[in-house]
Parts: sequence; C-alpha cells; structure tokens
Amino acid sequence: MRNERKNDSLRKVEIIKDYISHPEGSVLVAFGDTKVICNASVSEGVPPFLRDSGTGWVTAEYAMLPRATHTRNQRESKRGKQDGRSQEISRLIGRSLRAAVDFEKLGENTVTIDCDVIQADGGTRTAAITGGFCALYMACEWMIKQGMIAENPVTGMVSAISVGIVMGEPMLDLEYAEDSIADVDMNLVVKDNAEIVEIQGSAEKVAFDRDLLNKMLDLGFKGIKELTDIQKQVIK
Amino acid sequence: MRNERKNDSLRKVEIIKDYISHPEGSVLVAFGDTKVICNASVSEGVPPFLRDSGTGWVTAEYAMLPRATHTRNQRESKRGKQDGRSQEISRLIGRSLRAAVDFEKLGENTVTIDCDVIQADGGTRTAAITGGFCALYMACEWMIKQGMIAENPVTGMVSAISVGIVMGEPMLDLEYAEDSIADVDMNLVVKDNAEIVEIQGSAEKVAFDRDLLNKMLDLGFKGIKELTDIQKQVIK
Amino acid sequence: MRNERKNDSLRKVEIIKDYISHPEGSVLVAFGDTKVICNASVSEGVPPFLRDSGTGWVTAEYAMLPRATHTRNQRESKRGKQDGRSQEISRLIGRSLRAAVDFEKLGENTVTIDCDVIQADGGTRTAAITGGFCALYMACEWMIKQGMIAENPVTGMVSAISVGIVMGEPMLDLEYAEDSIADVDMNLVVKDNAEIVEIQGSAEKVAFDRDLLNKMLDLGFKGIKELTDIQKQVIK
Amino acid sequence: MRNERKNDSLRKVEIIKDYISHPEGSVLVAFGDTKVICNASVSEGVPPFLRDSGTGWVTAEYAMLPRATHTRNQRESKRGKQDGRSQEISRLIGRSLRAAVDFEKLGENTVTIDCDVIQADGGTRTAAITGGFCALYMACEWMIKQGMIAENPVTGMVSAISVGIVMGEPMLDLEYAEDSIADVDMNLVVKDNAEIVEIQGSAEKVAFDRDLLNKMLDLGFKGIKELTDIQKQVIK
Amino acid sequence: MRNERKNDSLRKVEIIKDYISHPEGSVLVAFGDTKVICNASVSEGVPPFLRDSGTGWVTAEYAMLPRATHTRNQRESKRGKQDGRSQEISRLIGRSLRAAVDFEKLGENTVTIDCDVIQADGGTRTAAITGGFCALYMACEWMIKQGMIAENPVTGMVSAISVGIVMGEPMLDLEYAEDSIADVDMNLVVKDNAEIVEIQGSAEKVAFDRDLLNKMLDLGFKGIKELTDIQKQVIK
Amino acid sequence: MRNERKNDSLRKVEIIKDYISHPEGSVLVAFGDTKVICNASVSEGVPPFLRDSGTGWVTAEYAMLPRATHTRNQRESKRGKQDGRSQEISRLIGRSLRAAVDFEKLGENTVTIDCDVIQADGGTRTAAITGGFCALYMACEWMIKQGMIAENPVTGMVSAISVGIVMGEPMLDLEYAEDSIADVDMNLVVKDNAEIVEIQGSAEKVAFDRDLLNKMLDLGFKGIKELTDIQKQVIK
Repeated sequence: MRNERKNDSLRKVEIIKDYISHPEGSVLVAFGDTKVICNASVSEGVPPFLRDSGTGWVTAEYAMLPRATHTRNQRESKRGKQDGRSQEISRLIGRSLRAAVDFEKLGENTVTIDCDVIQADGGTRTAAITGGFCALYMACEWMIKQGMIAENPVTGMVSAISVGIVMGEPMLDLEYAEDSIADVDMNLVVKDNAEIVEIQGSAEKVAFDRDLLNKMLDLGFKGIKELTDIQKQVIK
Repeated sequence: MRNERKNDSLRKVEIIKDYISHPEGSVLVAFGDTKVICNASVSEGVPPFLRDSGTGWVTAEYAMLPRATHTRNQRESKRGKQDGRSQEISRLIGRSLRAAVDFEKLGENTVTIDCDVIQADGGTRTAAITGGFCALYMACEWMIKQGMIAENPVTGMVSAISVGIVMGEPMLDLEYAEDSIADVDMNLVVKDNAEIVEIQGSAEKVAFDRDLLNKMLDLGFKGIKELTDIQKQVIK
Repeated sequence: MRNERKNDSLRKVEIIKDYISHPEGSVLVAFGDTKVICNASVSEGVPPFLRDSGTGWVTAEYAMLPRATHTRNQRESKRGKQDGRSQEISRLIGRSLRAAVDFEKLGENTVTIDCDVIQADGGTRTAAITGGFCALYMACEWMIKQGMIAENPVTGMVSAISVGIVMGEPMLDLEYAEDSIADVDMNLVVKDNAEIVEIQGSAEKVAFDRDLLNKMLDLGFKGIKELTDIQKQVIK
Repeated sequence: MRNERKNDSLRKVEIIKDYISHPEGSVLVAFGDTKVICNASVSEGVPPFLRDSGTGWVTAEYAMLPRATHTRNQRESKRGKQDGRSQEISRLIGRSLRAAVDFEKLGENTVTIDCDVIQADGGTRTAAITGGFCALYMACEWMIKQGMIAENPVTGMVSAISVGIVMGEPMLDLEYAEDSIADVDMNLVVKDNAEIVEIQGSAEKVAFDRDLLNKMLDLGFKGIKELTDIQKQVIK
Repeated sequence: MRNERKNDSLRKVEIIKDYISHPEGSVLVAFGDTKVICNASVSEGVPPFLRDSGTGWVTAEYAMLPRATHTRNQRESKRGKQDGRSQEISRLIGRSLRAAVDFEKLGENTVTIDCDVIQADGGTRTAAITGGFCALYMACEWMIKQGMIAENPVTGMVSAISVGIVMGEPMLDLEYAEDSIADVDMNLVVKDNAEIVEIQGSAEKVAFDRDLLNKMLDLGFKGIKELTDIQKQVIK
Repeated sequence: MRNERKNDSLRKVEIIKDYISHPEGSVLVAFGDTKVICNASVSEGVPPFLRDSGTGWVTAEYAMLPRATHTRNQRESKRGKQDGRSQEISRLIGRSLRAAVDFEKLGENTVTIDCDVIQADGGTRTAAITGGFCALYMACEWMIKQGMIAENPVTGMVSAISVGIVMGEPMLDLEYAEDSIADVDMNLVVKDNAEIVEIQGSAEKVAFDRDLLNKMLDLGFKGIKELTDIQKQVIK
C-alpha cells in the first residue's frame, strides 16, 4: 500500500474556474501535482466534412510545456512536429468529450479544447479530460448567453481516471513514481450514468487476466463518482 | 445478425510465410479482405536509451498504401508527416509485440516490424499485430541460425482481434461496413495464456456498461483462441 | 555473359490484374524478383492549372516499402519528406504515361497512378511504367463503363525497359546485382509504334560513345516489343 | 492620458517564485493581465560551437499558448514550425539575458529559459525578459548549491519595458488596447547600472524624430528602475 | 580608427538598376563587398486580412546564397525551414518599406521584395533595405505605366545604415571584420525627412549609455543623408 | 528556322571567373539571358558512406531565385522543402561532374557545387553543369595551392547542352520561348573526348524515332565542342 493515501483514494483534485481570461471556457485542473490549463475556444463554422450538415464539432489539442516534467523535453514546435504521444492523447480527449455532446444542438459551431500541461506528475490525460469537460460546458453556457445556441448541447458529464497494478496491487490515480513502476496502466473515461466511453488498458510489464481487469474497473468507477461530484460543484 | 457468418465468427484468416524475400521475417496476413504485409528487419544495436544495457528492442511502423481504402488518401510522405492515426497504431503494435519478448535473450539487437496495409476492410491493426507476431518470431529464428542469439526470446504468442456492438449486438472481427456503423469498437491484444496485453474500447456513438463489456470480452477471447491456432501452424 | 539468361533476354515478366480490389485499375507487375503494385485512382476535376480547360490529367507517385530492399530504408513519411530519387521517378512515370493519353477525351478528370514497390531487384521504374500503363488503361475502361467518358483516351501503348553496359557488354533488363556493377545504366520508355518517349542514360562509371549507345538502343527496342505483347494480353 | 494610470506608470507587476516545481528556476511574471511562466533548466554541456571552451551558454525559447490571446492562434507544433515572431522574441530574450552573465564562471553548462505566455495583454516580451532574469538567477543559485559552480555568474540585473507613442503622447508599459493603436512601439532592455542592452523601436504608423526618442527613453528608464527594485525582492 | 576610411565614412555604395530582367523592379546594391540582388514583384490581390479593404500590401523576403559567407551555410530549403535570423530580417525589411507607402494609392495590389545576398561582408540588412526601396519605387513606376495605379504610392524615401562601437569608438557602416569584434551593433532605418522608422541596437558584448547612443545616432544620420542622395540618382 | 541565330547555333556564352569572392571556385555563367552563379566550396571530410575509404566526393545543389522567372515562384525555404525539379537537377549536376573526377586523387575531401540561377531563359541545367565544371576545376587548383592535394583530380572536361525538336526542326540550345513549344527536349552531358556522360531526352508532346534522335545528337555534339573551347579559355 502506498504511503499517504489508500490504494482506492484519489489525489487532491482542484478545478479553478476562469483561470485564463480570454477563452469562452477556462479552468486549471490539478490532480495532486499534475496541473493542466484547459481552455475552450468557440468558433463559428465546422470542418469541411461537416459543412452544411447543421451539426457542430468538438476537438481537442494536448501538449506539455517543455519543463512540465523532471527533465526538459524539446519543444514540439522546434522539432517541427507534434510527437506521437501528444497526438494520441489529443485524439483521446476529443473522442471522449464528443461522447457527451448533442451536435445538432451545437449547430454549425466548433469548440476547440486546448489542454496544456504546465506541471506533470502522472495522470495528465485523465486530468485533461476531466478539466476539459468543465471548460467545454462553460463554453456552451457562454454560447447560450450570446444567443448562438438555444440550449446546452452537453448530454451528460464525462470524467476520466487512471488505475494500475503496482507491485501486484490495484491502485487508483497513479502519480508519476507509481506509474513508472506499474505493471499495468489503464485509463477509464466514464459518463455520470456509469457507462464507459473509453477503456484503454496496457500491460507495460505483466499481462493481466479478467479478474484483475474487474478489480481495476471497480476502483476506477469509485474514482469517477468522486470526480463527477467535484465537476458538478464547478459547473453548477 | 450478419449475413454470411455468425456474430462470433472470424473472417477467413490466412497468413502466407516468406511473402517478401529480403526481410528476416515476412508474412502477408489476410483477415477477410484486409491484407497487410508484415516485414521484420533485424539490426544490430539499440536506441540510445538502451545502449550498454545488454537488452534489445522491438519497434513497429504501420502505414497504408494510398489506395488501400475505398477512396485514395494522400501519401503521408507527401504531406510531410505521418498522420496521428498511423502513429497511434504503430505505437500499439510495438507495445503489443514487446509484451511477448524477453529482451535480455534478444541481446543488444533491434527488430523493426513494418506493417504495410495493401488492402483495407476493417481490422487492419489487429491483422497487423497478429501477422507482425509471426514475422517477429521468424526473425528471431533467423537470428538463432545466424548465431546472433542463443535461444528464441519470444516468451509467448500474441494476437489481436476487434469486437464491436453493431445495432445492439456484440460482433466479432468487424469488417469495414460493420465498423462504420458500430456503436462501440474494441480491440483486444491477448497472449496465448489468456492474459490481456492491451484493451482499447471506444464508444463511437453509444457508451456501454460493464455487462456489455463482458459480452465483448467473451467474444474476443473466443477469436483470440482461433487466431493463436492459426499462428501456431505458421511458425511451427 | 550472364548465367541464366542471354544478354538480350528479359527476366520473367508477370502482370496480375485486379490485384487490389478498391482501385479503378490495379495490377501487380513482376520483372523477375522486382514486384510493384500499380493502382490507378480516378477523381473528378483537375489541378488548378487545367481548370476550365476541358482537358484531363494523369499523374504518378512512386515509393518503396521500407524493406523492399536488402537493407531497410527509413520510411519517407517518418523523415518528413519524399527523397529526391522517389520524386524523380514519380515525375518520370507521370511524364511517360501522359505521352499515351489524349487529354481532351479524358475530360476534366484526373487519374493518379500509385506505384508501390513491395520487392526490389533492379528495374523498379521500368516495371512501374509498364504496369502503370495497364492500370491506367483499366481505369479508363472503368470510366467508360461508368459513363464518365465516351471513348478510351489512351492513344497507344507505353512500356519501359532498362539496358546497361556490364563489364563491357550491353545487357537487357538489369537485375540489382548487375545494375550495381554496371558502367552505364539506361532507361528507355517507348511506344508500341517504336517511337521514343523518354531516354535516360547515365554513365555511372565509364562514359560511352555513340556506337555503344546504338547497341543499347537495339537491345532496348527488342525488350520493348516483348513487353508490349505481354501488356496486350493483360488489357485485351 | 489613459484612464486608470498615468502615462509614466507601470501596470501592477507581480513575480511569483517557484511557480512550477521541476525546473531549477521558475517564476510566474505578471505585467497587469499579461502572464508568463518562466522556467530555467540547467543542463551539463554546451552547444557544439562552445565545446571545450570552458565557457557556458544561456538560451531562451518563447511561445504562447494558443488561447493566450483574444482569438485562438493555431498551435505552432501543428503548423510544423515556430512562427517568425516567436523566433525573433526567443532570440531577443536569449541575447538580453546573456548580457548579464559571465560565461567563464558558468563553466561548460547551459541554462535554457522557457518563457510560455499563458495570458497576453501587451508587453509579453518585456515581461518574459524581466521574469526570465529571475528564473536564470535562481537556477544559478541552484547550481551553486549543487556544487556545479563556485559563484553566481550573473554580473548585473537585466529587465525590460515597452514605451510607445499613443495619440501623440509617450506612454510607459503599453497594454494590448494601447499597443494596437500606437504610432510607435519601443522595447528597452536595460541593466541596473542604466546601460542599454537592447533598444528596438519601430514606427508602426508614424515615424519619430530624435526629440520623441529621448522622451521615450526617459519614460523607459523610469520603468526599468521600478522593475529592478521588484526583481531584487524576488531574488534576494 | 580604421585603415582605409574614416570612422564616419560609408563604404563605396553602388546601386545598379535593372540587374535582373524579369522583375517589375530590380537592382543590385553593393555596400563595399556586400552585394544584394533586390527584386520587386507586383501581383494583383492582397493577403486575406486585407481583402476588400481597397488597400495594398508590401512584404519582403531575405535570404543568403549558401556561399555568400566565408564558410558555406546549409541551404535553408534543404533544412526544411527558414532560419530565425532570415525571418527576422525579412520582417524588418517589410516593416521598413511599408513605412514609406500610402496603401490606399497602391490599391489592392501586393509588392513582394526579394532580397538575396550573393556576397556578404557585413551590413546585408541595411543594404537590402536601401536597395529594396529602389526596387519598390521602380515597381510602382511600372504599375503607373501599366495603368494599374494612378500615382506613385511611395510617400518618402527610406534607407538604412549600421553603426557600431568598435574598440570604444563609434563607427559607421561596419564591414564583417569590424562587426565581429564590435561591442555594440545598431541598425537605423530613417526617412529622408530625418524621422526614424526603426532603431535596433544590441550590446553584443558591452552595454552602452545614452551618451554613446547619441553619438551613434549622429553618425547614422550622416550616413543616411548620403545614402538618400545615391538613391535619388537611381530612381530619378 | 529561328530569327536571330541558326538552328545549330549556341546563344552567346559567357563565363566570368571569380564572380563571388569567398568560394574556392566561382563563376557566373551566361547562356544568352540565362545566368547562373556557380560556387564551389571545399570541405575536409566526406559523407558517412565514404568515411575511411581514402576517396573524396563531389555533390551539387541547384536552385532558382524566386524571381529568376517571368512570374515569381514561392521560395523553397518557405514551402519547407526543395521541389522535385530542383532535386532532380541537383542530382543530375552532381552525377555529371563526378564523371570527371578521380576520387582517389581528391583524397577524403568534398567539393560542393552550388548553382543558383539568378535569371532563367531556358537551359539552366546545362549552363549550371558547364559553369559548375569550371568552378570545380578552380577549387581543385586552389586545393593544390593549399597543399591539400598533390595533383588536379579532374580527369577530363565536362559540359552540357540542350537540343530540341521545335515545329519539326532540330534546334540547339533552346531558349525559354522555344523550349515551351518544343515537342522534344533533350539534354546532353558530354566529355571533351566525345563520350556521353548523360543523355536525357523527353517527348513533351510528340514521341521521336531513332532517326530524329541521331539528328539531335549531331547538333548536340557540335555545341559541346564549342562549349569545351570556351571552358578551356576560362580554366587555362
């Protein structure tokens, strides 16, 4: 068992509203020492494949500041491309948030969620989805106030948490030191009605059977419930 | 239920050995009309982060020919970068195959698995992992013959299959027409001892509960068992 | 003189129709151990410089799988650009095939010929032109069936062959082992009426006089005649 | 004269130490609503042109989050390159900070200053230099504690401020609304001994004579003095 | 004091008209051994941000031939991007020349000034601005002759010169050998009415006080006056 | 027949030595209104594939200034890559010049030939090869003077000329207006002993038979003889 919290405990979660002033929705989300700025930008119009469909779009971009981590990473813009990990997480965030949106109600508008990790200590993608949902919701409220849309297109709440197997034991919400020695790392994106949006489990070192899978799911669903409650405080 | 096969049936699977003559391991794998060339290339040495560790590395690259699909995609080399999807699948294949290798037995050597889709009809990533495993195994056998290594570092068999929920029904090994209307799309990478290496499930349209998750896992494990038997024929 | 065939002999040439199912025209062409997938894709519309001209366009792209060769080449998409050799050959194939097309009959449509070398043993560009012509022809036939055009815009047959000087002797259709020691390497693209479309001769090691040039042309024209007969079987 | 402060007044300046936990030096600097995270990263070794010189190097990189501004900018990593403005400011910050360092005392070490604008309201480059100096100083103190160097190589304090001509009047520390209507925009980088490190004045709309130049310099030197006092509080 | 000319002397300045035949305006400008080809290209239309504004645009691009310098630089096109210095100077030239243009008189037309350094010996950016102005003026004259515009939109003359502090002494128009040992390097862009368009001074080694700044300005204004006279000869 | 010169006449050819001062060899070559700066740069060492072989290397890079042509081309560095045509010609120049060098005599040194077209009127690649040869020869002479090599490694003279079929008539040294209406365009690179180094003929519109090929070769060899005489004057 880990030192300061139980295996089934989340780290301290904080979501600060209106962290940046310009975006239509903005929060700073912290899962322990992991801190992510989530900004939602509204723009009229949609990508070409949706033009004249009457429906909208939600997309996301994820990145880390070069020194969000223990050692400095080269800036992606300097390398001339996003790395594969950043793109993969961007795609995951976008898919996860789209699962909570009624695109007809959004009309032909696009909401872009920028998730920029300013400090990383494990779980950056789950923090980004959880905070990104709040930013998305706030941007939709802003659109209603502007008269762009009639009602909030968000159909349910979405949050995300990691679970892992560390030294044989299932653990919730891994921080970096735990993640780096985990045998299995799993990320769950779940709606507030307990339906799964995404499940991504990866055996970094030791493969896992269905029994362990179920134990991890139990932990994850417990964490999701707590995150949903925190999100509700933020967007109420 | 679908027309020509049962919901729990694989498509016709074929794995043709030595499809290309130059690589140390090479197969053409077909899952129905999906066809992927999997070539394994052996090189001495390892990436910088493993240098002088005495252990080896396995990596993978996935790509599609421009006209593997119904409509032509722009060539990635012409766009000047790999797209996010290709990189994400490349990373998945690499992780999945590394789960089956004892890197100390591999020594400071690298095996690169190139998975090039020449014809796509759904399930290209699962075909690539299943065929890529065979190419990897063959390349390891080649290394033994060359005297580069003493014993085969492959510790178990790895294959992959997709499962989905199509019009409410769980289905195994989705082809493109099914995949494009599926509510849920899940890919499973499993070892021959029934342990999970990767689980990636995504609710494209409708989120799913744990009961449906279990039904999909049942189907997937059935498919994996059949794939493992086919792989055994190839590498025996 | 070489071992298994005479200096004026082609390698075994095979052209397999409909190799890939999605393209409007598709062949696998083999010149001995050199194997190239040639896919023709039809799209409505033309590049900007031809818009509203009433005439069409044919273009080509050539690439090799990373392990088509003895040692693995880095994937072009990963390097972030096509290499110079690939672009040069792409341009050659496009020019060669355009010489056989009446663009007014093609209407404002574009045919893109993708030539992907899956196994290389010398002569990949000549195989690509010879097979690409067949794919182009088949795509034009498809357009007629679709009612897109009234008659086949192909005005004659085009094929290509290499000739070289190896250890002082002119040789037809060099394979890799011969090509790598050749003093002169020449590629000829010729129509079925014996008119030259492209001649590209390069003295890799020893320059050549006009007498040798003529001897090489004699050999090349012999090979072209045989290739034209094979093409006729394919597209008849 | 502007509304809430005099023409020769700075906005509220805040410099928060240790904003991010991993870097060797880190501050959040705010000039009014402009907020920049400045992180200093220490690495052993120097760029090739200094190798074996016994002297060190300081370099800087400047970037903005996509939604630091009123409307969202495309992410530089997605465009595949840093834009010209970012590179120009990165070069300015690096040059400015190098003017305050004794490179022999730094030894063969490199300090990289990342300046990431999270919220922009004019004066981002001057805030970045002013905050970047503090991060640099803190990183040097860290190196002393680590025993990497014997004494602090910083030879004097460096800060920066903007001055402009807005509707005919010289004004200190322009915010965005002022900057966008300014006739002249000038940035000054000055040491605490009142010597100029950089002067960059640009007539966006109306060119200026030497008399106006002197008035702007008077304003700028007043602001620099106040910034220096704030920096001293931070690094003391 | 330097050998062959006084500290307040320009190098020999030559501006050769119509150096290249195709452009609408073209000069070769030489400041001593620094030689820059300045070509002005006229195109109808303006960038998106000016569309339907009724006003025009002037932009510039600066580059060096690989062997314009003592040692060869890698070609920017081969590296896949313009380097930061080239972009920074391109932006400076564009801004400087735009300060001399009435964009309503230019109409919705764009003039692009290409400044290509064929031989570099210090002061390439100042030569480029000085020569670029002449090319711009000539292109405007050409537009009048073509009937594209009614009167010349150039509102005044613009030239540029460098000044530095070398071994404690202010010096005008630094050549490379002087520039490389200068403590301060300043570039001035000034109109013929003695108003400053750009001032960019940088303390490469030793910061400078306002007294030295004024001495450098005196030298610079003297040089600008002489350059303006030479420009008048060219465009009269 | 064309207006001002006979079908078998070269345009006025000029080769000006030492055009740029820094390179080890430099000429400006003019074929009529086509003007190319050819600079040869010597560097110690060779590319990786030749390391420790005791032999040297010659390589070339070809580019055009944006306004060398009638209408402005986008700068290759701005597009982020060399275009296919530039790379193809670069490769041709390099191959052609290497045919004239004894690499053992060159030792482990590299000569890079930069051919930058400042004004284009057809035949830029043939001018580049002809001028590039002179720059290469001069650089080799420089190396002897420096004591880097014992004797000149150039084994013979190489020059290049274009020939075409314009309105049915063979013509030597096509200028742009002729080239753009030519049915056939052929480039010949020939040594002073009348041996062919490269032959590249392309039927832009109408394919050609062997009789026409021979007529073009006759014209080309006549031109080469005259070019060789001019080169001899330059390098003697």
